Amino acid sequence: MNFNAALENIKSYEAGKPIELVVREYGIDKDQIVKLASNENPFGCSPKVKEAVCAIIDNMALYPDDSMVKLKTALSDKYKIQANELIIGAGSDQVIEFAIHAKAHEGSKVLMNSVTFAMYEIYAKQVGAEIIRTASREHKMEEFYALYQEHKPSIIFLCTPNNPTGDGLKASEMVAFIEKIDSNTLVIVDGAYMEYACFKDPAYAVDPCDLIAKFNNVLFLGTFSKAYGLGGMRVGYGIAQDHIIKTLYKVRPPFNITTLSLEAASVALEDEAFVQECIRHNFEEMGRYEEFARAKGIDVIQSYTNFVTLSLPEEKNSSKIAQELLKKGMIVRDLSSYGLNAIRVTIGTSIQNDRFFELTDPLL
Amino acid sequence: MNFNAALENIKSYEAGKPIELVVREYGIDKDQIVKLASNENPFGCSPKVKEAVCAIIDNMALYPDDSMVKLKTALSDKYKIQANELIIGAGSDQVIEFAIHAKAHEGSKVLMNSVTFAMYEIYAKQVGAEIIRTASREHKMEEFYALYQEHKPSIIFLCTPNNPTGDGLKASEMVAFIEKIDSNTLVIVDGAYMEYACFKDPAYAVDPCDLIAKFNNVLFLGTFSKAYGLGGMRVGYGIAQDHIIKTLYKVRPPFNITTLSLEAASVALEDEAFVQECIRHNFEEMGRYEEFARAKGIDVIQSYTNFVTLSLPEEKNSSKIAQELLKKGMIVRDLSSYGLNAIRVTIGTSIQNDRFFELTDPLL
Repeated sequence: MNFNAALENIKSYEAGKPIELVVREYGIDKDQIVKLASNENPFGCSPKVKEAVCAIIDNMALYPDDSMVKLKTALSDKYKIQANELIIGAGSDQVIEFAIHAKAHEGSKVLMNSVTFAMYEIYAKQVGAEIIRTASREHKMEEFYALYQEHKPSIIFLCTPNNPTGDGLKASEMVAFIEKIDSNTLVIVDGAYMEYACFKDPAYAVDPCDLIAKFNNVLFLGTFSKAYGLGGMRVGYGIAQDHIIKTLYKVRPPFNITTLSLEAASVALEDEAFVQECIRHNFEEMGRYEEFARAKGIDVIQSYTNFVTLSLPEEKNSSKIAQELLKKGMIVRDLSSYGLNAIRVTIGTSIQNDRFFELTDPLL
Repeated sequence: MNFNAALENIKSYEAGKPIELVVREYGIDKDQIVKLASNENPFGCSPKVKEAVCAIIDNMALYPDDSMVKLKTALSDKYKIQANELIIGAGSDQVIEFAIHAKAHEGSKVLMNSVTFAMYEIYAKQVGAEIIRTASREHKMEEFYALYQEHKPSIIFLCTPNNPTGDGLKASEMVAFIEKIDSNTLVIVDGAYMEYACFKDPAYAVDPCDLIAKFNNVLFLGTFSKAYGLGGMRVGYGIAQDHIIKTLYKVRPPFNITTLSLEAASVALEDEAFVQECIRHNFEEMGRYEEFARAKGIDVIQSYTNFVTLSLPEEKNSSKIAQELLKKGMIVRDLSSYGLNAIRVTIGTSIQNDRFFELTDPLL
């Protein structure tokens, strides 16, 4: 059977290995496995969320409230925006998919950073779009601007802080760049890790409310998968002016968020103190990774997220090291598929981090 | 901002009104509302499912096992198929989306029944495909075949039992039709209500294992949203030969099923007795609807599902009747948007059904 030609050169997303897979493949006891590969919050979500979800367990049979009024109200309050400036996705991933399906097509161009979140390319290729990438590992606005002028892309992705490297883009620099972009180009600002950047340095904090007040061509993305500790529940969101949201709604499947996920995300927003305490702990522990890297003479990229990226020296191979760690039950992310000789490690609990240092020490 | 031209003539899916919305709009007490609009199992899911989901509530932070091994194993066992003949979607809806994105494009033709599940058209229009429909309300294979010969569609949808009418297609008749279809046309057999048809009449039972053994161009769809009582958890599946599944995987977003939904669906398959008892009750109560309709002189379409479609006489307007019922807290589905002067009613518990008869009696 013939399928659409665009699918021929799509590679699948390489996810962090789930614990179940390591149990099956390596026969390691589940309790011995530490997963620092998918940037999940090691403290999970607020206990209030767990209580709330179990309290509505009888509602699993009922289709979700597709107007999502509870979650939209909570998010609108958080960001001081209107409900019609908001769309909810099954992870911010799905909002990326909506945007690409709505705006890009065969022959469109999509501009993104040299190294960035893999799904931008995968979704863009699904519709036959051409990928344009900058040269540098960091987001350099002058490179983006030169490529914008040359290619006039339909969509520009800015990922700040960037995944999988962890570095950030100053908000003022980003705004100055977007000011030069024509209003028919959709600029997607992926802030999946923005809560961490906001905590670390206000200069890197992007406020979606300001952003959409200023620009009619910007879509900001946020998620509950990272700081809010709900990676398993698949809830993210897009914030943009009403005319963009209305169009994204046209490609949104009905009931795209489960009944329990809507409740979980809504209640997670009620316990901001829990999230802030997790973020504080994150940066405290990040100091230990920086120290470890320094002691080992390894470069660590300055991170505004809940992970650190260790750039390895030439004589050390990131795939081999990740593999060695995996055999011992420590799951980290090898970045060789991104063209980097580096490993990305999620900041865990202090016990998990101890284990990482202990296992990695002899390998580096 | 310009978006893809195909989006211009997309209308959104009209879902059954959620209880929350009726509470907000009509100020009716939540406990007074009966929703018989979305074909949910009125008994919900097995209690074992609720226990299992609450038992893994701590896993909400962890990204789902994207290989979905537990659920795939359980489904493979149920249907006597291989895991690589199976893809899981966020509802069977999402598998429809995968298939259309993989196979159809601008100018493709998609053939479907005159009256059928609304999402086929919505997804097909998103990629700019042209919709071809038969003339009769029931699936008539001779009409399908004539249109197939005339249009050579990329995709044919057969929905059996059909939503929103409830009637079914004999398995032998369907197989005889598919035998005449070239292998480059994807035939999608939507069996969202198949568990009910199997119970009611073996002649209407489609066995996906037989189907894919026989045909290399068929995709069978199933769901946990109906008989398994998990409409809020968004889990459905597609069964087809490996080469089709592999291609659908290329347009599947990673982590498309939540951690809790994977567990819920897996455990639901372990309590088949619960599901069969719900189905038995469904047909017992359906008899009462048929009797009610007969007493009122109203046509009821012979149903192989968990809902009945009451075709109203000309002098009664389905929109008005649905609206009258809504004001009293009874949510049913008006089918006027499908071009039918009919209302669709989910078979509820006997108390819910009593309430329907009581409220509807003076209106008909």
